[in-house]
Amino acid sequence: MPFKKKTKVSPEPEVDEESNESAPKAGANRGISKLDLAMRMVAAIGTLGSALAVGTANGSGPFFSGFFRFGAGYDDLPTFTFLVVTNAIVCGYLVLSLLLSIFHILKSSARVTRVILIILDTVMVAYLTGGASSAAAMVHLAHKGNGGAICQQHNSFCDRVAGALVGSFIGVVVLLLLISMSAVALSRH
Amino acid sequence: MPFKKKTKVSPEPEVDEESNESAPKAGANRGISKLDLAMRMVAAIGTLGSALAVGTANGSGPFFSGFFRFGAGYDDLPTFTFLVVTNAIVCGYLVLSLLLSIFHILKSSARVTRVILIILDTVMVAYLTGGASSAAAMVHLAHKGNGGAICQQHNSFCDRVAGALVGSFIGVVVLLLLISMSAVALSRH
Repeated sequence: MPFKKKTKVSPEPEVDEESNESAPKAGANRGISKLDLAMRMVAAIGTLGSALAVGTANGSGPFFSGFFRFGAGYDDLPTFTFLVVTNAIVCGYLVLSLLLSIFHILKSSARVTRVILIILDTVMVAYLTGGASSAAAMVHLAHKGNGGAICQQHNSFCDRVAGALVGSFIGVVVLLLLISMSAVALSRH
Repeated sequence: MPFKKKTKVSPEPEVDEESNESAPKAGANRGISKLDLAMRMVAAIGTLGSALAVGTANGSGPFFSGFFRFGAGYDDLPTFTFLVVTNAIVCGYLVLSLLLSIFHILKSSARVTRVILIILDTVMVAYLTGGASSAAAMVHLAHKGNGGAICQQHNSFCDRVAGALVGSFIGVVVLLLLISMSAVALSRH
């Protein structure tokens, strides 16, 4: 780690950092920011797909009445509603956060916005993991529960949920990587 | 927060950064690290309590056979095993991470270890949220499911799980705060 002294004399203090000996770091951070932008798009598409896959599911009435009513549409069970809402909110957040990501490409020395992005990304990781895990537990029951092979009767809905879970967990993994990258970029100033 | 000057003369290279104009920042970061240590202990106790609450539950045979066999001990259902394992692993991680937290108090200019801590904390947030959310979905079914008021018959187990969920989500919230604090400390170098 280099131990340079900062010589800032501007009203926008962090711009100067990119000029001299820190130029390679700024370049590396710009590279991280570009990767950040691309990965954010991937996660946005994954969560959008998940929200649509379950959100557009519909079908006939309830097909399971032993334990709970498990309709073919997502809105019969709070967990699957939660999965759709979670994915939709995280997708919306990811699209908005593209703006910050672009800002970081233009101004790779930004620090406050990187901290904000780490905090928001972390909250979204927890939120998305919560939604996906509870839905995973439910669909696991629907597959393996002793009460009956629900998913054998209603393959379509179970497949949609399984697909949505894949999209959600892709979103979770990408967000984890984004947080790691932001932390590395932040440590390089 | 005290802005005292450190006068270490050790071979560790980053000490120089703390000497002159960055002394107040180093002091602030030391304050953050102390808070980090205290909060990590709170989270460790929360997750330890959660693991013990469900892990030590035992009782008679299965009491619900409509949908799945829901034993009075946690090991009858993968989700509750997962809850115990998750809390135990996160608790172990938190105890180990106390060492890094103490290191950050002693050497508040450390950067690489802060990045590592952010990454590991984030993974643990996702892991703990996953375990707690799936267990929450299950215990929600046990409370509200149409199949029967399982929790009215087996209050003790449901109460233990509910208590464990509180401990787990305290752990999640504390970890989210710890990540935010680490990001702020990292941005101050």
